[in-house]
Amino acid sequence: MTLQEALNTIEPLDEAAMEYTRHRWNTLGKPLHSLGRLETMVTDFAGIYRDKNPRLAKKAVIVMAADNGVVEEGVTQTGQEVTKIVTENMTKHNATICILSEMSGADVFPVDIGIVTDCDNPGVRNEKIRYGTANMLHEPAMTRQEAIRAIETGIRLVGELKEKGYNILATGEMGIGNTTSSSAICSVLLDQPVEKVTGKGAGLSSEGLLHKIDVIKESIANNKVDPEDPLDVLSKVGGLDIAGMCGCFIGGAVHHVPVFADGFISCVAALVAMRIAPACAPYIFPSHCSNEPAGKMVLDGIGKQPYILADMCLGEGTGAVIGFTIADYAFKAYWELPSFEDTKFGTYEELN
Amino acid sequence: MTLQEALNTIEPLDEAAMEYTRHRWNTLGKPLHSLGRLETMVTDFAGIYRDKNPRLAKKAVIVMAADNGVVEEGVTQTGQEVTKIVTENMTKHNATICILSEMSGADVFPVDIGIVTDCDNPGVRNEKIRYGTANMLHEPAMTRQEAIRAIETGIRLVGELKEKGYNILATGEMGIGNTTSSSAICSVLLDQPVEKVTGKGAGLSSEGLLHKIDVIKESIANNKVDPEDPLDVLSKVGGLDIAGMCGCFIGGAVHHVPVFADGFISCVAALVAMRIAPACAPYIFPSHCSNEPAGKMVLDGIGKQPYILADMCLGEGTGAVIGFTIADYAFKAYWELPSFEDTKFGTYEELN
Repeated sequence: MTLQEALNTIEPLDEAAMEYTRHRWNTLGKPLHSLGRLETMVTDFAGIYRDKNPRLAKKAVIVMAADNGVVEEGVTQTGQEVTKIVTENMTKHNATICILSEMSGADVFPVDIGIVTDCDNPGVRNEKIRYGTANMLHEPAMTRQEAIRAIETGIRLVGELKEKGYNILATGEMGIGNTTSSSAICSVLLDQPVEKVTGKGAGLSSEGLLHKIDVIKESIANNKVDPEDPLDVLSKVGGLDIAGMCGCFIGGAVHHVPVFADGFISCVAALVAMRIAPACAPYIFPSHCSNEPAGKMVLDGIGKQPYILADMCLGEGTGAVIGFTIADYAFKAYWELPSFEDTKFGTYEELN
Repeated sequence: MTLQEALNTIEPLDEAAMEYTRHRWNTLGKPLHSLGRLETMVTDFAGIYRDKNPRLAKKAVIVMAADNGVVEEGVTQTGQEVTKIVTENMTKHNATICILSEMSGADVFPVDIGIVTDCDNPGVRNEKIRYGTANMLHEPAMTRQEAIRAIETGIRLVGELKEKGYNILATGEMGIGNTTSSSAICSVLLDQPVEKVTGKGAGLSSEGLLHKIDVIKESIANNKVDPEDPLDVLSKVGGLDIAGMCGCFIGGAVHHVPVFADGFISCVAALVAMRIAPACAPYIFPSHCSNEPAGKMVLDGIGKQPYILADMCLGEGTGAVIGFTIADYAFKAYWELPSFEDTKFGTYEELN
């Protein structure tokens, strides 16, 4: 499916299924609306699934892994080789996302969408668009066509997982240098000064941070990015991991699957997705608020309030899979709460 | 143990155990501090347990149930009979807290600390201080001595559960009218106008809300409460459920058990506990931010940031037991994350 075909496919949520679910919540033995956003989450999922009796099935986190040419400017603490090592560790239950996903009951699917070297590991899905992006300080990180292909990859992978019985997904990423590309996109799309949206990533020094800010500013200027054209921004100062995750969010809307965003980088991908396809917004769910300086800002930018506040900033989808557990609680309440009849104290509605 | 003996017992957290745990976090294969407050939670628990290898054991939520005499002023939507019905439902797996606790792996202990009638149910612990409070509009809700006895009950119950192998606890409550007493305490102890800290509770009308505000204002004035004396505030315009939960928080500090607060009412109890015994603060953990108007304000008042934002306001401990799951993730990460050596990319420390 091409990106254009995908965009033509997206429909609003099914209001009839949502209305049924809203009504059923109000028959359960608790003060009306007292489970707050646990209630609206189940209602939204009903609208997404087009099913008035929504149930969670298999869960997965798609981890988009890619390298960033801008790393040669010294904007990171670690070298590009770490992207591949950590991505391959995900196939050996040897990465943080694997440990936390075990508790969430989620499967982890690492995807090489642009690591700078080849992964000789069957557990890493090979969807490489190119061997890392170009150094955005001097040229566009990728071509517009490459960005579109990465997005289409994300859309396709969501479709595949849906076929395999997954109906709740999360985005994760691994890519040294990807807070640099994320801050660049964030600055342009949210029209914020680079200083306000840029942090130390995984342990940069204060001096390193100032250099990172300069590199981002110059990259934006040198590439003459058009803030009104999200694909232009994504391809010139973005990354392949961000493009792939952007595709996952659009794919969720196409294939009727809710997709949880992780932290800063993942939310930037959601922002790009919503700029390309505003209709995908109700299919996107936040999870936590990243401890990156612009973590809250980008959540505000996509108009979503997080479920979890834990000052995390690890990436890989680690916050998103904790979000899955919030969904588990919501569905458990929806399906197992006693009705007003069972509780023997009449409905709160009657008493109003 | 008397309240005064308890207050003399509270010690600071064990810094040596915390330092060991902090150091071990930094040997795990992830950017330093990138699990944020999941890391500090485990470190704090090490300090509470006085154990450099902290592990979670059994979990429980103590649900303090009591009635409030002020209900006769028409400040609630439902009658007092609901307190007993819901409390007894908790012994039959027929209440929201039971359903959610099942997912959290927590046991539910309902306690009658002041229901207006007797519970003929062996599953409800009988710790009744009196048959509901007096109507605080006309007289103190309870005597100072009754408030102290309710607090001592909470301290004792935490000690009992510790003996039985529980090492992570939560507070919950059930009591028609207890947002009225909570708003009264909140207004006095945080020096905020009653209008700002009072909401509709479980479904009051807008007209009912105005009446509730008037009743709270007059109750505070009629009782001449002393804002500098938390026991005076608690006994005159508080409730037995709040006093009991206050005791649970102090008991956590006495018996070296972390205690999670639930929403508004529970956090008000934590506020009273911290005013009576400031040293118990590090033993108290927030869970979610209640959707009650003063939910965030009282969290700010106790200086705690929530882990969960879901606009819940059901009570019973329902948010607190979701907080338990955040603790499960934190401990899973602490004990199962690969070390830097395992991840094969060297330490982030070295690279700094």
